[in-house]
Amino acid sequence: MRILFLLLTTFTFFTSIAQSEDEKQLRSIYDKALTDGKAYDWLNYLSNEIGGRLSGSQEAQKAVEYTKAELEALGLDRVWLQPVMVPKWERGAKEVAYLESSKGKINLPICALGGSVATPKSGIKGKILEVQGVDDLKKLGEDKIKGNIIFYNRPMNPNLINTFEAYSGCVNQRYSGAAEAIKYGASGIIVRSMNLRLDDFPHTGSMSYGNIPTSNRIPAAAISTNGANLLSNALKLDSKAQFYFKQNCKQYEDVESFNVIGEIKGSTYPDEIMIVGGHLDSWDLGDGSHDDGAGVVQSMDVLRLIKASGYKPKKTIRVVLFMNEENGLRGGKKYAEVAKNKKEKHVFALESDSGGFTPRGFSFDCSDADFAQVQNWKTLFEPYLIHLFVKGHAGADIGPLKDEGLVLAGLRPDSQRYFDHHHAENDTFEHVNKRELELGAATMASLVFLVDKYGFTPAKVIKD
Amino acid sequence: MRILFLLLTTFTFFTSIAQSEDEKQLRSIYDKALTDGKAYDWLNYLSNEIGGRLSGSQEAQKAVEYTKAELEALGLDRVWLQPVMVPKWERGAKEVAYLESSKGKINLPICALGGSVATPKSGIKGKILEVQGVDDLKKLGEDKIKGNIIFYNRPMNPNLINTFEAYSGCVNQRYSGAAEAIKYGASGIIVRSMNLRLDDFPHTGSMSYGNIPTSNRIPAAAISTNGANLLSNALKLDSKAQFYFKQNCKQYEDVESFNVIGEIKGSTYPDEIMIVGGHLDSWDLGDGSHDDGAGVVQSMDVLRLIKASGYKPKKTIRVVLFMNEENGLRGGKKYAEVAKNKKEKHVFALESDSGGFTPRGFSFDCSDADFAQVQNWKTLFEPYLIHLFVKGHAGADIGPLKDEGLVLAGLRPDSQRYFDHHHAENDTFEHVNKRELELGAATMASLVFLVDKYGFTPAKVIKD
Repeated sequence: MRILFLLLTTFTFFTSIAQSEDEKQLRSIYDKALTDGKAYDWLNYLSNEIGGRLSGSQEAQKAVEYTKAELEALGLDRVWLQPVMVPKWERGAKEVAYLESSKGKINLPICALGGSVATPKSGIKGKILEVQGVDDLKKLGEDKIKGNIIFYNRPMNPNLINTFEAYSGCVNQRYSGAAEAIKYGASGIIVRSMNLRLDDFPHTGSMSYGNIPTSNRIPAAAISTNGANLLSNALKLDSKAQFYFKQNCKQYEDVESFNVIGEIKGSTYPDEIMIVGGHLDSWDLGDGSHDDGAGVVQSMDVLRLIKASGYKPKKTIRVVLFMNEENGLRGGKKYAEVAKNKKEKHVFALESDSGGFTPRGFSFDCSDADFAQVQNWKTLFEPYLIHLFVKGHAGADIGPLKDEGLVLAGLRPDSQRYFDHHHAENDTFEHVNKRELELGAATMASLVFLVDKYGFTPAKVIKD
Repeated sequence: MRILFLLLTTFTFFTSIAQSEDEKQLRSIYDKALTDGKAYDWLNYLSNEIGGRLSGSQEAQKAVEYTKAELEALGLDRVWLQPVMVPKWERGAKEVAYLESSKGKINLPICALGGSVATPKSGIKGKILEVQGVDDLKKLGEDKIKGNIIFYNRPMNPNLINTFEAYSGCVNQRYSGAAEAIKYGASGIIVRSMNLRLDDFPHTGSMSYGNIPTSNRIPAAAISTNGANLLSNALKLDSKAQFYFKQNCKQYEDVESFNVIGEIKGSTYPDEIMIVGGHLDSWDLGDGSHDDGAGVVQSMDVLRLIKASGYKPKKTIRVVLFMNEENGLRGGKKYAEVAKNKKEKHVFALESDSGGFTPRGFSFDCSDADFAQVQNWKTLFEPYLIHLFVKGHAGADIGPLKDEGLVLAGLRPDSQRYFDHHHAENDTFEHVNKRELELGAATMASLVFLVDKYGFTPAKVIKD
């Protein structure tokens, strides 16, 4: 591509002669985000000065202190910490895994799943059985499984355009794979990483043993997609190959941590609360830039952008940086519990927890009438190439707030690259593009503005 | 983001009960592209085995031979090379630049613009004057400019959502900056890279001296965006600072090269030709993965995907891999010239030359009636998150074909990251995502299918 646009008569959004007040307000928000955004600088600090922020870690505490101080510097009406007890799990020394087959020994990249128990100090060694999911365990039966390692290798479905759907089609292997395999006497499990790309990064993530007592728990790890393919091929050549792995993780007692909250008091309806948020904790392998540093800094910038645009919100706008989304959701649950106890009236909750990629739109968890109201705003977003307004899941942290009449929404960024980085060592700052992050913040701020101005049920027609 | 989608009732596109033939055809194309695409492998070869492919280089010739062989392997009805004379320019040894100010000496990253003359062997040293564009030259006047270096530093406008518009607002500094500065007696020019990001990569690109005789030409180089900011700040502290640069580029006589063409003969209207293409040449600094290796391999895959889907095209479909888009457009001009001489009837031309990022839609250069026909197809693309159908520039290589009745179209990928890589050392394979590339190929193939089946004016309603 060279100079092709020289000859093109470009038209910009500025030249529109009949620009409505709402169009001007959105333009002002996007301009501010793209020329004077703070999200990228904040993310740089969270990612590069603090790093991975697993619940209960020193880094998570630093992130609490940093974001609180930054919100205070914005001159909001109120900034506070909401205490919450969170689980504390540590990975310990780096994991080791290899396969010994008739073809020799190959090392394989694995990482412990969050919440897994350690292997014995000497590791675990044994036969490894490949399955395509928990249903295969029943077919194999206890006789074949007992004392062996289960290798869950069902990949994400590449045909699904929304990669989150492909994730949801696989993630039970990771979340419940150990608990299921324990029923058949397995000694450990290895799960193919939830990643559509072939590469060498193992992807961690939460898992649960359900109510299985600690003494019966077996270690669970993820293997990189390249590693999974290598392992699968090696097992085809030698089904008696011996798999070895060793991991050193540990679960501690719960510790105190915090949700970080800031608010701008509404001028007309101070008791009607709109929240915007992401989660402050992250997995430990990368620096948590996409998951969910991006959502944190975008949410912080929503309040700053609305203030900077000169708009005086009628309702109260709160930014909530939730602690412990990844391995407990304690922050989201605590926020909802406190809100309920205080009888706070939440009218809107928006979460960004799908990465800092180019925003495509929002998914809404709401009534048909409220969704119809959202449709009235679609054309205002078109100049910013925001086209996707669908019903669907909104966000994990805001889920516990769910109540009749409350509209939940989730930012929907482009999802193609998300699982290349999700919960892996390469979820790092250099994979976030400044403009894409800023466009997300502006898109969120624009929706918050419209909800503040027009509200939901009963639907009101936009008039300027 | 953890397991949130476990609870989400996902619906997939497969479950639609009333799927039309067209819906099925598009689904088949996308499935094939995402599970059995060839584009990424081809790009890997072009980028990593061949590399940067400037017109007239050995690499460009290798790319001609490689893509011809790959098209032949697809079993098309015909594959051929179309000879075209192209300019040959070489960069030579790496450029050097620094500023000597009262604060000391700072090295600055520059690269020669394509088509620039070299500096004298000892380089050029002199006062450097910052301007915001060619209009500033008149204000400064010949007295101030004569013998000095001009530094064009107008940045791309970050407020524009379509980054190509921001590019078009700046690129005249690069393309015409030297020719304009010569009129005022400047000794050389330095241009701020056309890049929205702050980084250390200088971005090359084409420039023209117009009809200025060779002996009067002055050397022209681009400086990285960080370098431009550093230079600008240093000049504010010491306006008499001395700028030095040295570059070793050379223009040779034109050499023969080729457009690479393959076609599937139409079953019903073999004389109605649809073309799909990208340009095979690239700049020399990176490996040309986004510009325009992506467009090349996507265009090749369009023919393969249509064949593989079992659809028998009624019209002739041609893939055209144009040579010399970057510094001459000779391939595009030659193709149009030959088509005109042979009185070939082209009904549709589609180009991909905006990077291998997630596709968002197409821009069409066509009549209102033809554009109305395109609108009929929009809903078929929605499951693939393709929403953008606009009128606008289609593509440089297909531009010379323009004729009444011919519909020109350009793929419109997400543009936010494009100029981070454009014409720079970091336009490399690892910055192309496999799925995003494949989605682009499928989106192009789907449009070609619809144009083949329904055609344009007079608009026909889709019926199945």
